[in-house]
Amino acid sequence: MGVAGRPDEPVTLVIEAGGAHLARLLAAVEARLRDIAAAAGGPVAGWAGATIAAGGKRLRPLLVLLAAGEAPAAEVPLVRAAVSVELVHAATLVHDDVLDAAALRRGRPTVWATDGRAAAVATGDHLFARAFSELAANDDVEQVRVLSRASSALAEGELLQRADAWDVAVAPERYLLRCELKTARLFEAACELGEANRPPPAAAPQLGAFGRRIGLAFQLLDDVLDVSGPAERTGKHRGTDLLDGTVTLPLILARAVDPELAALDLRAVRTAEEAERICDAIAATGALEQARERALRLVAEAKELLPEELDAEQRRALLLVADGVVARYA
Amino acid sequence: MGVAGRPDEPVTLVIEAGGAHLARLLAAVEARLRDIAAAAGGPVAGWAGATIAAGGKRLRPLLVLLAAGEAPAAEVPLVRAAVSVELVHAATLVHDDVLDAAALRRGRPTVWATDGRAAAVATGDHLFARAFSELAANDDVEQVRVLSRASSALAEGELLQRADAWDVAVAPERYLLRCELKTARLFEAACELGEANRPPPAAAPQLGAFGRRIGLAFQLLDDVLDVSGPAERTGKHRGTDLLDGTVTLPLILARAVDPELAALDLRAVRTAEEAERICDAIAATGALEQARERALRLVAEAKELLPEELDAEQRRALLLVADGVVARYA
Repeated sequence: MGVAGRPDEPVTLVIEAGGAHLARLLAAVEARLRDIAAAAGGPVAGWAGATIAAGGKRLRPLLVLLAAGEAPAAEVPLVRAAVSVELVHAATLVHDDVLDAAALRRGRPTVWATDGRAAAVATGDHLFARAFSELAANDDVEQVRVLSRASSALAEGELLQRADAWDVAVAPERYLLRCELKTARLFEAACELGEANRPPPAAAPQLGAFGRRIGLAFQLLDDVLDVSGPAERTGKHRGTDLLDGTVTLPLILARAVDPELAALDLRAVRTAEEAERICDAIAATGALEQARERALRLVAEAKELLPEELDAEQRRALLLVADGVVARYA
Repeated sequence: MGVAGRPDEPVTLVIEAGGAHLARLLAAVEARLRDIAAAAGGPVAGWAGATIAAGGKRLRPLLVLLAAGEAPAAEVPLVRAAVSVELVHAATLVHDDVLDAAALRRGRPTVWATDGRAAAVATGDHLFARAFSELAANDDVEQVRVLSRASSALAEGELLQRADAWDVAVAPERYLLRCELKTARLFEAACELGEANRPPPAAAPQLGAFGRRIGLAFQLLDDVLDVSGPAERTGKHRGTDLLDGTVTLPLILARAVDPELAALDLRAVRTAEEAERICDAIAATGALEQARERALRLVAEAKELLPEELDAEQRRALLLVADGVVARYA
């Protein structure tokens, strides 16, 4: 997608509230992402472009832009920071598709599916490298450090997920740690990178904890959506996590209620139909509502963490993002 | 391996010539690499550690250290730069093993072989991210830029190799471009990073072109070794490139002489025995000597490119590295 998303997506809501300033910056982010993909040359240009186009909601760049406040120090470095976060996200997606052997993402064929493992691994590496060169142009090493720490966390989270695969008895703390690493830390980094591009005197970083909780809520709701569907919305069948052996909060909550789910052998679940049947069993326990409730509490916590000293416009936009994360799943 | 390599390896030769100063710095690089692997925690620590241990000759860190001259500005940042280059190299190796489905590297089982695709992709991502956080600590954005450009080139080179796979008629220029991207650019970056850690006033970068040619020669000789063996030295069967569909200089040169090789259908080559038979056919054309000759010319060019103003010690060490690259294949 370009800047214009679904009418209830955070980007759309915030642009409507924030007006021309934000729309222009987001358009600059899109243009730069397209340029970076195109500059790769050869087949990579197409693969990188497709990955970036399939990336979705641009929540992370949006957080970067919003965290910088109404009048960022300079627009070019701010756009670079937003672009670099999205590039790391895109790199992760394309590598995840290799690991999951995922044929579709948001209803489109993945690079892995169309051009194979090698194309996908190298495209991810390329996007990853470009993220750092893009951010390095900001001449602020602390920003590079923030992004590389978040990138390490992403890889650790992915590994944790693999280590825990097929384990229906995985501890809830372990699941939450994985979500922190896989998702929340890059949301946190997005906020910190935005703050690093505030006009001087820069305030001490304050929005990281907000971003982290929003990211965690986002991941929880994403995991709910994988069970609840509908497929038209997610661009994939219900229960793809189950078929990958990925145990998420809905199943963790449901197994406490339904002994059959607790005794489930995930490796025996092989078809989309079987996965959907288990999704129904999970839903029947009320676990989806519980998981959604937990995500809503995280969003409420995030809102309370917004510092007093934010100006009214910035606060309003960040609250819209927080609500927007939830609204998509209403 | 640790600092001590085979007696004829560049690291050993240069340490013997350069003495305690260099040995201490290389030991610091090894210690830091081990610490970074261990700090990953969980299974990643083991995978990252194994990848780094299997990495080999430490030619790239050696170039970083040597390019900084006899009295580097400060040792800690210099070691960081050397470590970051080796981490990018290690990340690439572990990803390459996924793409090549390689069971062995330097005679040891790969992460891909022991723990699968997911472990290897995520371990590579982790090493990659750590490379940038390590280098970012140097507070010099230009260094990050140098490393990220080289990393992009590595990914491009890998993709080019995949794009050209199975094409026995691939142009020699294309092969050389691939070697530039896959290997020479990181050697160049190693030299540039070393120079960035010279004491002020830093001279203009001068050793990049030297590093690039050494890197190219190194890749050419590596490709010769894949055909010539012996397996005890390479830790893998002869002809693994052929089995991957990777057409390198020996076959490119040999196909001009041997019509059977020019008409070869690489996809039909399926067993180690068939690959070895083709290696013999390539060797029979004299292509291995020609390819070695070409690499030797590159090394000679590299030596001539060493700037006049180098001090005698630094020049002597760099010449040893250049000769060492060749000596391994004598």
